Amino acid sequence: MDCIDSYPFYVEPFHVDFRGNIFFSILGNHMLNAAGNHSQKRGWGIAALNETRHTWVLSRLSIEMNEMPKEYEHCEVRTWVESVKRYFTNRNFSILRADGTPLGYARSIWAMIDLETRKPCDLISLYDGDILRYVVPEEENICPIEGYGRFHFREPELLCTIDTHYSDIDINGHVNSMKYIEHILDLFPRERFERQQVRRIEIAYKAESYFGDRLSFYCQPVSEVETGIEIRKHAVGKEHECSEEVVCHARICFTQDNNEH
Amino acid sequence: MDCIDSYPFYVEPFHVDFRGNIFFSILGNHMLNAAGNHSQKRGWGIAALNETRHTWVLSRLSIEMNEMPKEYEHCEVRTWVESVKRYFTNRNFSILRADGTPLGYARSIWAMIDLETRKPCDLISLYDGDILRYVVPEEENICPIEGYGRFHFREPELLCTIDTHYSDIDINGHVNSMKYIEHILDLFPRERFERQQVRRIEIAYKAESYFGDRLSFYCQPVSEVETGIEIRKHAVGKEHECSEEVVCHARICFTQDNNEH
Repeated sequence: MDCIDSYPFYVEPFHVDFRGNIFFSILGNHMLNAAGNHSQKRGWGIAALNETRHTWVLSRLSIEMNEMPKEYEHCEVRTWVESVKRYFTNRNFSILRADGTPLGYARSIWAMIDLETRKPCDLISLYDGDILRYVVPEEENICPIEGYGRFHFREPELLCTIDTHYSDIDINGHVNSMKYIEHILDLFPRERFERQQVRRIEIAYKAESYFGDRLSFYCQPVSEVETGIEIRKHAVGKEHECSEEVVCHARICFTQDNNEH
Repeated sequence: MDCIDSYPFYVEPFHVDFRGNIFFSILGNHMLNAAGNHSQKRGWGIAALNETRHTWVLSRLSIEMNEMPKEYEHCEVRTWVESVKRYFTNRNFSILRADGTPLGYARSIWAMIDLETRKPCDLISLYDGDILRYVVPEEENICPIEGYGRFHFREPELLCTIDTHYSDIDINGHVNSMKYIEHILDLFPRERFERQQVRRIEIAYKAESYFGDRLSFYCQPVSEVETGIEIRKHAVGKEHECSEEVVCHARICFTQDNNEH
C-alpha cells in the first residue's frame, strides 16, 4: 500500500469566510477526516482501536497556508505518517488545488491512549510494531513548514470568557478540537481580517474541556502579525471546588497588511 | 427534467453531537446545498441571478425529524419546488437514509430580491414565468409536516446577549442562517439534550445581521417541550445611534422525555 492517501474536498458556499477563503476550522476538519480514513485503511482507525480500548488523541497541530482554498474550488488533502516515536506519531499533510498546486502544509502530533487509564501507550510495542510499516519513505516526506515553536506566556491579558455549549461538544463529550480554532479566531476584530489573512495556526492541546466548562482566553501579542493565546478552563468539580487548568496554547500568525503586497 | 433532485451526504464524525445525532445546523447546511444545486441546474442559481443583480433570500425554514441521521450514515436530501407565488416560492425537502427510510421533512420559503434596491421581485414575470416549469406535480409533493405557525411573543425573557464574530459571517457579509440555529440550540443546557431530542425547528428570518452586531436572545417557554425564541440586534449606526430590530423568530420543539418512550 502507498504511504500517502488523498482526501478530496469541495469548498462549499457556507464553508468560506467573508473574504471567500475556507475557514481554518473547516479545513482542519477535512484534515482530521483525511487522517481518520488513512488510519482506518491501515487497521489503526478509531473503531478498530476501540476494540482494544485505545484511541488517538491529537496533541499538536500546525497549519501553514500560502493561499486558502476558495469558494467552489475542488481541492485535496494528502496525508502520511512522517515518523513514529514510542509515545507519539508525527503525521503531515499537504493541501493542494485540483490542478496540483500546493496551497499549504500541516504537521500534527498524535498520542495513543488507553481508554481506561487515559495514559499514553507504547506505539511501537502495540501490535508488534505494525505501525512502523506505514512510515513514509524519507524522500516522499515533503512538508516545507516550520516545526513546532515553544510557547512562552508572560502575564498574558484576559480577553474574554465564554461558556461551552451544545454546539461545541463532539460525540466523545469533549469540546471539538476545531471549535477551539473557531473561538480563537473569533477573538480578532473585523478590521484584522479585512487587512490581513491568517497565514499560520499552531495549537497545542493540553487538556480536554467539557459541556458547561467556562473557558478564558488570554492573549499575548508577539508582533504586529503574531499573537499567542492561552485557553484556561474553570471547571467546577463534584464537590463544587473550582480549578483552573490550561486547555490549549496557540499561536496565530497573520500575513503583513494586504496593501503592503 | 425531473422536478425532484437528490443530494447525497455522509454523516462525518465531527458533524454529530454528543448523542451521535447530526447537528441541525449541519443538516440545514446540506439542505441549502441541495437547494442551491437544484436551482443552479435549472438556470435559477445564485451565480446566474447575480448577472441580472438578483439573489435568493431564505425567509422561513421548518425542519421536522422523526429520527436524526447518525454518525457514519449515508443519507440524502431530496428537494423540489412546491409552488411559486408572486413574491415567494415554497421549496420542500425530505431527508432519507440510504435504504430509502424517510427520517424527516422540511419546508422553506424563499424570496427573490433585487441586489440594488433589496426589494422583492415578481418571480412570475421574471424570465417570462420560466420558474413555473419547475413546480413539482401535486402527487409528488410529499411533505407530511405542519406548515408555519404564527409566533406570538408576550414579554419574552432575555436569556443572553452575544456579539457576532468572524466565524458567524458568510461570504455575503451576513450572519450565516445556520449559525442562528447553532446559537439558539446553545441556549439550552446539557440536561435538556440528555433528556430530550430536538424534533422540530421553525425559524423566520426577518432581518440580516452583520459582523460586530450584538444579538440578544429572548425566550418564551410555550410548554414542557416547546420554546419560542426572538433574536434582536442592537446595531450601532454611523452616527453612533443605537437601534433594536428583530432578526429572527424561532420555535424549538423537543420530544417528550426519552425515558417516557
